[in-house]
Parts: sequence; structure tokens; C-alpha cells
Amino acid sequence: MSEKIRVVLDAMGGDFAPAEPVKAAVEALNENTELFIYLTGKEDQINQELQKYTYPKDRLEVVHASEIIETGEAPAKAIQTKKDSSLVKGLKMVREGKADAIVSAGSTGAVLVGGQVIVRKVPGVERAPLAPLIPTEKGFSLLIDCGANVDARSSHLVQFAIIGTIYMKHVIGIENPTVGLVNIGAEEEKGNALAKETYQLLKETEGINFIGNVEARDIPAGAADIVVTEAFTGNVILKLYEGLAGTLIKKVKEGLMSTLRSKIGGILIKPALKNTLKSFDSSTYGGAPLLGLRGLVVKTHGSAKSVEIKNSIIQCIKFTEQDLPGMISEHLKK
Amino acid sequence: MSEKIRVVLDAMGGDFAPAEPVKAAVEALNENTELFIYLTGKEDQINQELQKYTYPKDRLEVVHASEIIETGEAPAKAIQTKKDSSLVKGLKMVREGKADAIVSAGSTGAVLVGGQVIVRKVPGVERAPLAPLIPTEKGFSLLIDCGANVDARSSHLVQFAIIGTIYMKHVIGIENPTVGLVNIGAEEEKGNALAKETYQLLKETEGINFIGNVEARDIPAGAADIVVTEAFTGNVILKLYEGLAGTLIKKVKEGLMSTLRSKIGGILIKPALKNTLKSFDSSTYGGAPLLGLRGLVVKTHGSAKSVEIKNSIIQCIKFTEQDLPGMISEHLKK
Repeated sequence: MSEKIRVVLDAMGGDFAPAEPVKAAVEALNENTELFIYLTGKEDQINQELQKYTYPKDRLEVVHASEIIETGEAPAKAIQTKKDSSLVKGLKMVREGKADAIVSAGSTGAVLVGGQVIVRKVPGVERAPLAPLIPTEKGFSLLIDCGANVDARSSHLVQFAIIGTIYMKHVIGIENPTVGLVNIGAEEEKGNALAKETYQLLKETEGINFIGNVEARDIPAGAADIVVTEAFTGNVILKLYEGLAGTLIKKVKEGLMSTLRSKIGGILIKPALKNTLKSFDSSTYGGAPLLGLRGLVVKTHGSAKSVEIKNSIIQCIKFTEQDLPGMISEHLKK
Repeated sequence: MSEKIRVVLDAMGGDFAPAEPVKAAVEALNENTELFIYLTGKEDQINQELQKYTYPKDRLEVVHASEIIETGEAPAKAIQTKKDSSLVKGLKMVREGKADAIVSAGSTGAVLVGGQVIVRKVPGVERAPLAPLIPTEKGFSLLIDCGANVDARSSHLVQFAIIGTIYMKHVIGIENPTVGLVNIGAEEEKGNALAKETYQLLKETEGINFIGNVEARDIPAGAADIVVTEAFTGNVILKLYEGLAGTLIKKVKEGLMSTLRSKIGGILIKPALKNTLKSFDSSTYGGAPLLGLRGLVVKTHGSAKSVEIKNSIIQCIKFTEQDLPGMISEHLKK
């Protein structure tokens, strides 16, 4: 069992818990023989779901946790007081080395706080950024940071560029990934105080491939592999991506239903269009890792179904095969 | 002539000047009998373009200007030194009351600086915000501010909410328009220092219909009529809107060309789809007004063709029929 990748799945996190997390665990186990999954949460509910499926029983263990952290709760307080919650128990297993990674679709705030407080940051890391992959014309880019720690300093953003580079190189497998700084103009002197200061620091940072400012207009085209920004703007970019993609797809569908001619056309194009739009579907990319921690913490959408949760689990395999915390710590010492 | 709406059009501004601006002027004049247009720029070039068209010669005047402000130039310096440029000459005509409004597709920076320096702000206005209408599922929202003045204070954002409310009420004709503050969460205590401070001030601001925080995800759905944010985030939202819409439409087209079946379907759906996507085309809405000034300054895209420029000119009619500067000044005195 020691060669297995051990992933904790918060079975009580997300809008469709425990049904979808349990289904995701079963699917991930059946697809990947090197996986071992711990399901944390209410034992009876989890077992009831598990009865529906066939799965390798020697690679799954239910770890009972009596409490659940709800989305509305104040994150810091919830982490501190709900010691017997599915999330806190799971995070502790990562901290204690009993598991390599944890995946949760639960409260973003609680996952972010819990990751930093319980799993803890790699020494030297000032802030742990939440860094999802966002779809682009060329494939995808890493958007770092989209977390809850706003009002960042330029030194934080420089670390995000370094951590993002290590992630894209060693987990995603992109050689010499480009780093762009989100700004409101391409020129060096553009932007707010934070962007200007960060630009100068990034220019002098070794070990990253800084290509300068990136305007938001060029992010969907894939202007940079790593898109560096502070969490407020990152959050706006991530959520506008989701909202606008949803609205445009809705508009296209409305257009298709507007005339008889377009309805017939719509039936003909459906398979091709589905394939194309799939590449812009965030669930394909699984969850967002909280980087810079001593273990791996992955946050998936609260609305995630089993496919997305499963992809998040599979993501952990590649991640844990590499010693990312070691690499980050090594680079920051330089 | 005194009852006419007098609009200056910077004939040398934008990527397709003077051809597209001149064409736009002719189209606007032919469609609106209450319009009078001044075209500022190089007389010989403008006249050469004008020869191509039939138009009411008594409602158009060419005002010669020998210089052009280029996009790459430092805005403040360009405004100061190029006194005989098409933009500066036009702005001065607005300042001196010879014209009611100016439309330019030239350098955004120069238009923003020139508007504030030459046309000048309404007394009491701290910053003049650039406020485009962005398409939503319900129609459109006013995104205020998208300008170049970053690092805003909360008092600026409160003024944006007030100015935006007056604009949406009296120019666009929406009764009791809703005001939302861009933030990374719906709850009152969410966000960075600026958002938290602004939230508290907006709650207590009279004469606006503040509905709380708006997450970027909900902007395309039309969550608020007036979307208040500081210029850095506003710029990111505006440009991501453009970039993402472009990328998604490209993806849809790629999908349609991928199989024979989808190609046939594509031909059938083309007219319906074109209609739907038109509502998400920024050129339909014309330009972005620079609000809070003593006259009207409208900035259109550098890449604007005649339709967009024409729509920007027509926008000015409604605007100048109302005494917006007076209303803003009145409200800020309260």
C-alpha cells in the first residue's frame, strides 16, 4: 500500500454530497489502480451510497467524521471549532502524512483557511495561492491567485510567478512556461501601484520566463501560460469567465431555437458544437490546487458533479509524484 | 441652427481614420435631421472622403487641424503640446460652448486626459469616470469606471454610483436603476479594503438604489443596471468581455467547420445566430461616455467602423437633450 497515491476525499463537501463525491471516488478507483481513497464524513450516509457500486474494497476506507462545515459559516471559526468535520479530519490526515492529498467541494473559505492553518505553508512561502487552470484558445492557462487573501503585496505576486512556474513545469509538463502580469496596458509604465512595482520585480526574478504585461482581452487567446494577479482581480477574471461562457452558450442556444431553419441546423451541429464547447468547460480541468502548502489541497466547485471531482482526484496523482513542496522551498531559498 | 445638437467628430482618430469617421458622420446626418456635425482634422483628407457621399452640406462643417495625436504618445504631453490636433481643437469647441459633444476613436489616454483638462469636470466631481454600456442577458449594464485613473478611493466609487444613476435614469431611461458593487463575494464583509469601505458608504448614500455586492459571475446575467468598480478591475472586466466573446464565437465557428454535417447545419443556423450574437456585439452600443464633465466626451473603440462611430454620435443627441452636468452638480451639493 505504500506505493499507492493516497487521496482524501471530503465526502460531505459540495452541493451534491455525499452522492456525487462517493460516485467520483468509485470511478477514480476503477480507472486508476495506483489510487487509494479515504472518504471522510458520516459513515452511514457514505456506506449507503457505496452500496450502489462495485469497487476495489481494498483501496477505499471510510473515515467517520460527525460534523459538516457549511458554506455560510465563518471559515476561521469553523476550522477551529469543528474538529470532527469531514474537512478538518481530512486536512489533518494530510498534515500527519497519512494521505498525500485532499480534494474538497466544500466551502472555499474553509478549504483555504484550513489548508494554510492545518496543512501549513512551505517555509518561505508568504501566501498560499489558489490557482485554477482556465481554458484558452491554445489549451489552458494557470490563473494565480484566485483565493480569498486580497490586498496582496508585490512580493506575494513574485512568489505566485515562481510557484506557478514550478507547477506548470513539473505537474502540467510545459517547458519554460511564459509568465504574464495582468495589467490594463501592455506598456511597462501602465497600471496601478501594485502592478507597476510587481513588473519591476518580475523583470529581475530568475528562473521564470516573464513576458511582460497581459491585458485581460488577451487572456482567452492564451497570451501567457501563467497569468499572475492578486486575488481580487483573479477572482473577478475566474468568475467572469464562468458567467460569460454560460451566458454566451445560452444565447447561442436561444438563437438556434428561434426559427424552424435554425432548429434543423441546430440538430445537425449539435455533436460538433458539443465537442468544441467541452474544451471551454471548467469541469474538464478538475479543481483548483491551493499551492505552496506542505501537502496538496484541491478545491473543486461546490456544484461539481462526479466527473469534475474524479478529475480533481486524478490530478493529485501527477502532483504527488513530484516533490513540489521541496522544489518550491529550494527555489525560494535562492 | 441653435436648436440643432452640435457634435464634433474627431475625423483623424482611430485605426480607420479619416475614412470611417467621415462615413459615420454622413450616415448620422442622413438619419438625424436635428444633428449638426463638425469634423476636425486635415481638411484636404476629409474633403477627399466627403466627395464620395451625398449629405446635407448645411449641417456639416470641416474644421481644419494640422496635427494628429497618435495612440503611442504620452497623453498629458500630447494634449499640452499638440494644440492644433483634431482632438484638442474639438475638445476646445466643447469647452467654449461651440459644440455640445465630441466623439473620438483616438488614443484613450489622450481623450481621458483632454476631457478632464480641457472640457473640465463638473464642480464637486473628484474623478471623471469612463462608463461603457456592456451587453447582458437582460440588455445592458453601465460599467463605471473603466478609465485610466487607477488606485481609486471609496469616495470616488460613491460618486461613480451617483453619476451612473443620473446617466441611466435620464439618458438611458431606466427608472430607479439598481447599483451593484463588484466584489468577490455576496456578503457585506467580503472583499478588499476598498470594497468593504465602499460598501458601507453606498449603503448610506441617498438617491441611489444600492443592491449590494455583485460577483463577476453574475454581471453577464445582468445582476445590476450600474456596475460600480475602480478603473483597474473595470478595465479587466471590459477587456475580458471583449476577449472572451471573441474566443467563444471563434470556437463555435471552428466547431461548425469540423464535420460535413456541422457545415450544413452551420449554413442553416447562420442568420439566426448572427441576430443573437449581435446583441453581444459591443459596436451596437456605440462608445463609452466620459461622465462628470461640463460637456459630453465619448470615446469609441480605436478599431471602430462607421456603424459604431455613428451610434456614438446618435448617443450624444439624447445626452445633450438633458442637462446632465447640472443634475450631477445639484446631486453632489446635497
